Amino acid sequence: MPNHLSPEPCRHMCTLDERSCHGHHVLFSVNNLNFLNARNASFFAANINTHIHLVKSSTIRRKYLLPASVHGEIGPQISAWISSNGFSALKGTNWELHLSFDARAGAVISLASVKDSDKGVFRPVLYRGHVSELFVPYMDPSADWYFKTFFDAGEFALGLLTAPLEPFTDCPANAVFMDADVAGVDGSPVRNIPNAMCVFERYAGDVAWRHTEVITEVRPEVSLVVRSAAVVGNYDYVIDWEFKTTGSIKIGVALSGILEVKATYYSHADELSGDAHGSLIAGNTLGVYHDRFLTFRLDLDVDGPNNSFVKSRLRPVRAAAGPRRSYWTVEKETARRETDGSVELDATELMVVNPNRRTRIGNEVGYKIVSHGGTATSLLDDDDYPQRRASYTKRQVWVTAYDEAEKWAAGLYTDQSTGDDNLAAWSRRNREIENKDIVLWYTVGIHHVPCQEDFPVMPAVTGGFELRPTNFFDRNPLIRTRPNKQATWPNCSLIN
Amino acid sequence: MPNHLSPEPCRHMCTLDERSCHGHHVLFSVNNLNFLNARNASFFAANINTHIHLVKSSTIRRKYLLPASVHGEIGPQISAWISSNGFSALKGTNWELHLSFDARAGAVISLASVKDSDKGVFRPVLYRGHVSELFVPYMDPSADWYFKTFFDAGEFALGLLTAPLEPFTDCPANAVFMDADVAGVDGSPVRNIPNAMCVFERYAGDVAWRHTEVITEVRPEVSLVVRSAAVVGNYDYVIDWEFKTTGSIKIGVALSGILEVKATYYSHADELSGDAHGSLIAGNTLGVYHDRFLTFRLDLDVDGPNNSFVKSRLRPVRAAAGPRRSYWTVEKETARRETDGSVELDATELMVVNPNRRTRIGNEVGYKIVSHGGTATSLLDDDDYPQRRASYTKRQVWVTAYDEAEKWAAGLYTDQSTGDDNLAAWSRRNREIENKDIVLWYTVGIHHVPCQEDFPVMPAVTGGFELRPTNFFDRNPLIRTRPNKQATWPNCSLIN
Repeated sequence: MPNHLSPEPCRHMCTLDERSCHGHHVLFSVNNLNFLNARNASFFAANINTHIHLVKSSTIRRKYLLPASVHGEIGPQISAWISSNGFSALKGTNWELHLSFDARAGAVISLASVKDSDKGVFRPVLYRGHVSELFVPYMDPSADWYFKTFFDAGEFALGLLTAPLEPFTDCPANAVFMDADVAGVDGSPVRNIPNAMCVFERYAGDVAWRHTEVITEVRPEVSLVVRSAAVVGNYDYVIDWEFKTTGSIKIGVALSGILEVKATYYSHADELSGDAHGSLIAGNTLGVYHDRFLTFRLDLDVDGPNNSFVKSRLRPVRAAAGPRRSYWTVEKETARRETDGSVELDATELMVVNPNRRTRIGNEVGYKIVSHGGTATSLLDDDDYPQRRASYTKRQVWVTAYDEAEKWAAGLYTDQSTGDDNLAAWSRRNREIENKDIVLWYTVGIHHVPCQEDFPVMPAVTGGFELRPTNFFDRNPLIRTRPNKQATWPNCSLIN
Repeated sequence: MPNHLSPEPCRHMCTLDERSCHGHHVLFSVNNLNFLNARNASFFAANINTHIHLVKSSTIRRKYLLPASVHGEIGPQISAWISSNGFSALKGTNWELHLSFDARAGAVISLASVKDSDKGVFRPVLYRGHVSELFVPYMDPSADWYFKTFFDAGEFALGLLTAPLEPFTDCPANAVFMDADVAGVDGSPVRNIPNAMCVFERYAGDVAWRHTEVITEVRPEVSLVVRSAAVVGNYDYVIDWEFKTTGSIKIGVALSGILEVKATYYSHADELSGDAHGSLIAGNTLGVYHDRFLTFRLDLDVDGPNNSFVKSRLRPVRAAAGPRRSYWTVEKETARRETDGSVELDATELMVVNPNRRTRIGNEVGYKIVSHGGTATSLLDDDDYPQRRASYTKRQVWVTAYDEAEKWAAGLYTDQSTGDDNLAAWSRRNREIENKDIVLWYTVGIHHVPCQEDFPVMPAVTGGFELRPTNFFDRNPLIRTRPNKQATWPNCSLIN
């Protein structure tokens, strides 16, 4: 039992959980799973034990691997094997990484290293990365809905709810698939998820770099993608870890599935009055307003374990003389303690650097954060109970000192959390984070005002961010790649 | 001559242009191209006449078209023809659009309509869309650099500087290519650009929608992409118009090419002192800080010409009673005049709706704006001369009343602009924009602090936004698409 559990604040929700199904309410104790009260109850949803997080190695199936990449140069194929420590190791494009599976987080990336072709060595970037929490508060304060403030990782377990991926649709035809086994507390397997993850080289038709000046030189982009999809009841979360040949790690989420809907007497928008807490998305059907905050835990080891967090603020400067009256410059600030490590995204470049490693011309090697949409932060009041538990969702970025026990942003025992064992609480300890083993936390946030297109199954809404090498390499790491040739284009005919 | 040209403010830069090459300065009159003054001058860059913007139809070459889509179901192939009005018309996936080419803007999309499969008709979305301006101010106030505040469309012409696209690298192997002819003022062709644009169906391996619940249903994403690349001296701008089967138009920019660099005596970062106005990216080489603001003009006709601009602010609400203390709701405000039409991106959903068209259940049909990164706004002072000319870059979104003369965000005669004929100036006229033919302007902005990876050619930096149908369709428009089958996977062997 977590010894921090306080019986005092908001007692009702700390130790009790309430679930409903269309007006049938059930109240039960999370501590001892006692059934306490029901109103019009016909059934109740059991509280899932989310504290299984043993990891077991996976098997890899290759049946859909193509003889050659179809869109580009014949590059190095993905190779995968079970390494001696029981993890699956992958090698593809210019990355090496280990891939494992966790009942709570789903896919876990570890020991991701990128090849520095100028130096001929693999250099570490990401020691361990995974989804840490997924907070989904709904915006209807009524009795049926107020408690719908789900922590999908901590309360339901993204790994346990990982769906088998479909060849040809969930992943492209050149993907390889990996199964996952989830072990129970006694070590025996409790679930096998076939095709739990897929790995493929992605040829999206994008350009990695180009320039025309008398001659034209272009290199197409190829990346290594690790994909999994968790289906938490109604919603589907497709999570991509994309390792680019340029050295970037791009983390993308695609949200699909079915909206949580609420019945209404009305079948036309004009009939609605007051705050319906949702949009009319079909006859008699309201899609309730909600947010989705996916928090990633990224234990970065940029060229080694000891890193610093540098905020480069772009500061406007009034020009002293000359026709120009203003410009901006860069003011770097290295975060010394955790209170300097939590920030909101603005006109500041955020970097994780290794102050002990320099490039040949003296720049600190680093990776910067680049947002690709989904930058919402929570709008709930700080004293609102779900917000206290997810208080870390008020800022997109946190940097904390490494602590083995701090893996789950909403706390280890999320069901019973009160907000005193979460990411924001750990940060308040204000440990030193300069030139230490630090952990970066990034939250992809999306406010969702449903619309008719989201019904009956919603087209994917995407968001994500990129960890981009910034003075990590001495120069563009792709500059020496050879151009494509027409001769590498395969000759295709249809099977059927 | 534009009659608004004022001789008073900042006379030096209004009518004169100064160009330099490594310390050699040339001062010349933009009005009559007189050579006025030179310091250590060895040559000067001529001022390009950017006011050719006649459009001529293009030809389409299909040599690389595949017999079938390689990653998915065999969908409708792209068909293209020269339509009766001289434009090239395209039909692919579920979109129909016209494609033309303009010497100043580059690729121009017009009459883009999406098929509503429930109604069996094509419905208009975008009447005309193109890059309007590309403002690139550098952040070095010294004599060699202060005037480097380029307007790449208005001063140099993106169409004239469009580079031929390379098959297999600039565009994937299934692309079709189109040439562009640029006509002079007398109608005679002055330049032919082979492969100026390419069109392809994109199979990036993404999921369009999915859900697992007992059974699994997934549909992979296919989109129609129109691509072109303008090379403005050192920088390459790859611009994608992506038409998704879900009804979204996603506009993406990928910035590559070569940095504008400045020589320095120093070859190590530790030797730099004070504000160098750039980063040391190689020995004796500074990459000067700069911004890039790509402004798109989008003359939307959402289901018809008369549209309104609706801002849906997500407003936090204190809960009156019950365990929940807060939630957010949506407050819609329809912009009545142009002053309500210029906004910064925040927790507000921005939509263009057609108030004269409703869905079956009564929602106004619309398209909303979704950012996918690149949301920077200018940090320059309002009274700085380049900022006065590009004053519209302080906000990402503007909505103006349609005016045939208002196509170029920095004014028709950009070289001689003073800021009194630009997008911000037009907006100050404060015309009515409710239920009118309106134009949406969106600026993709990127602050660029160069790093060593950007040298010698930079890996693409991406940004963009999406116009996403929001209550435009009665339901998910892809819900009726058939799933992929393994049998549609082609049998490939290598040509060589």
